[in-house]
Amino acid sequence: MRIILDVMGGDKDPSEFVRGAVMAKKEYDADITLVGDEVKIRETLASQKVSAEDFEIVNAPDVIKMEDNPLSIRREHRDCSMATALKLVAGGKGDAVVSAGNTGALFIGGTGYIHCIDGVRRAALATILPLGNPFLLMDCGANAEVTPAFLVQFAHLGSVYMERVMGIENPRVALLNNGAEAHKGTPLYKEAHGLLAAEKDINFIGNVEGKELPFNACDVVVCDGFSGNIVLKTIEGTSRFVMKQFTSIFDGIIGKIAGALVIKKAKGLKKRFDAKEYGGAPFLGLSKPVIKAHGNSDAKAVKNAIRQAVAYVNTGVIDAIARQTAEKKNEQGK
Amino acid sequence: MRIILDVMGGDKDPSEFVRGAVMAKKEYDADITLVGDEVKIRETLASQKVSAEDFEIVNAPDVIKMEDNPLSIRREHRDCSMATALKLVAGGKGDAVVSAGNTGALFIGGTGYIHCIDGVRRAALATILPLGNPFLLMDCGANAEVTPAFLVQFAHLGSVYMERVMGIENPRVALLNNGAEAHKGTPLYKEAHGLLAAEKDINFIGNVEGKELPFNACDVVVCDGFSGNIVLKTIEGTSRFVMKQFTSIFDGIIGKIAGALVIKKAKGLKKRFDAKEYGGAPFLGLSKPVIKAHGNSDAKAVKNAIRQAVAYVNTGVIDAIARQTAEKKNEQGK
Repeated sequence: MRIILDVMGGDKDPSEFVRGAVMAKKEYDADITLVGDEVKIRETLASQKVSAEDFEIVNAPDVIKMEDNPLSIRREHRDCSMATALKLVAGGKGDAVVSAGNTGALFIGGTGYIHCIDGVRRAALATILPLGNPFLLMDCGANAEVTPAFLVQFAHLGSVYMERVMGIENPRVALLNNGAEAHKGTPLYKEAHGLLAAEKDINFIGNVEGKELPFNACDVVVCDGFSGNIVLKTIEGTSRFVMKQFTSIFDGIIGKIAGALVIKKAKGLKKRFDAKEYGGAPFLGLSKPVIKAHGNSDAKAVKNAIRQAVAYVNTGVIDAIARQTAEKKNEQGK
Repeated sequence: MRIILDVMGGDKDPSEFVRGAVMAKKEYDADITLVGDEVKIRETLASQKVSAEDFEIVNAPDVIKMEDNPLSIRREHRDCSMATALKLVAGGKGDAVVSAGNTGALFIGGTGYIHCIDGVRRAALATILPLGNPFLLMDCGANAEVTPAFLVQFAHLGSVYMERVMGIENPRVALLNNGAEAHKGTPLYKEAHGLLAAEKDINFIGNVEGKELPFNACDVVVCDGFSGNIVLKTIEGTSRFVMKQFTSIFDGIIGKIAGALVIKKAKGLKKRFDAKEYGGAPFLGLSKPVIKAHGNSDAKAVKNAIRQAVAYVNTGVIDAIARQTAEKKNEQGK
């Protein structure tokens, strides 16, 4: 298996990405291609005392930045590191792409260079949130606008993912909404609710509200990318805030008595909410694995994203989605 | 000053509302009219050993339930306790309404019976969230769909509220979005961003993401009611979840050593995230104060909502909004 890593485009220096790749190569059974500024890549490998022979290196020094127009990945930045990584996988030179760059560009590039699975209208960004139970939030940022039919397809993609990759039987699918009742939400959400309730191959359990999300409410949350991104970031901010409040309270009280033990346990909890631990978010619906690592990824986060890419390839989830989509198409054709 | 309290329509029994009114009457300088099932109201007052003479009682036993169509407040439920309370204020028989009932119905009833301030297109539900700094989230549930012009007006309403009621000079207004850059979000949000940036009388500071909300990012957050409601409930659920995790960790470790002190401090923190402490959310833009108490309000939450209604009347914020809206209209007419 070969993972293609875009070492540019994240908030941090490319050297963090190279260091993450070195860590991943030691831990996981995967070959890695490093795509980016070759000089920088070789410098970092040398400083790490790692032989450049251990990696394939593809020189692509141009970078699409966070503030760049995502469409530029098909135009002025069509040879940037991200585009190059995607084209390598599209051309069969690798099994999965990992990038921490511009999410919109990765979505447009992924859809443009790699294409959706036959029958899938839109790919979407799917993040696992490890709260009361691990649940999949989808879309969490690729499609700011959706149609009810997209949401139904997200429900199917998410179900297959949770079943295959997370081993959850008959995953509970819920629609994010501003109330429990079927008539809640915008006209788009009301229509999606009706369509989801009529689907036979998914276990649709109705609407879910933000306040229930952390308490084992469901296994897949379906929503538009605007709302999903807001949920993701609100969970991130709120958990960070509450933890800060708590640790400041306990800092003063406990002092040296139970200090070490408390700090250790608190760190474990912090890890649970740390986006860097999630590994990254796959674009479900694409015909090859594309993993979006957190923009702020450091070496450890990069390593975790590569771990997820390896797992994604190994589970055969894309074949499972393709089979299910083809079956559905056949049924509808009858 | 007279506050009109709808004692029906919340999740809890009307007796909780009557008990909340009894507590509020003792603490705040306000007369209270209790609207609902007169038999139940008199029974509760008797059981509390409170004279029925201390309150005005209006018999309106019909109730609009959480699952009822909000529009029914203008049709089959036009004489329910909520509608009756709104009509009393509209007719000058009181200064503010407090209700814990169906949010949609309170919005439609408020707009229908009490009307918006002249020049205001849409009222919106505004909640103060007391995190790193107290900030106003608006709309948080009344208008699932909005136009860019509504969002601009919400920005004005929220600014005046934070200045008048919370004493914040030149409040920082931000647009909720899925990224910091001006081009982020749906077409509606992009357009709203442009309009807000061009407004002279508000201190627009750009987009805000969910992860920044708890960290003193701004004073007013403007958004559609669907997204706002989701943010509100996601903050509620996440903070409850993280606190639960923390208290379970510390329970075991600390035992009896620092127990009492820790529990006391943790409770103080919990209070901070407790919706019942907020008091309630005003519908900004209506020509009289209408305060939405939390659906799950108990007596204490009812008391706090009445406290907020009293404060709302006293600050004269509605007159300030009316003046500002009229000035704006004049300017535009020139």
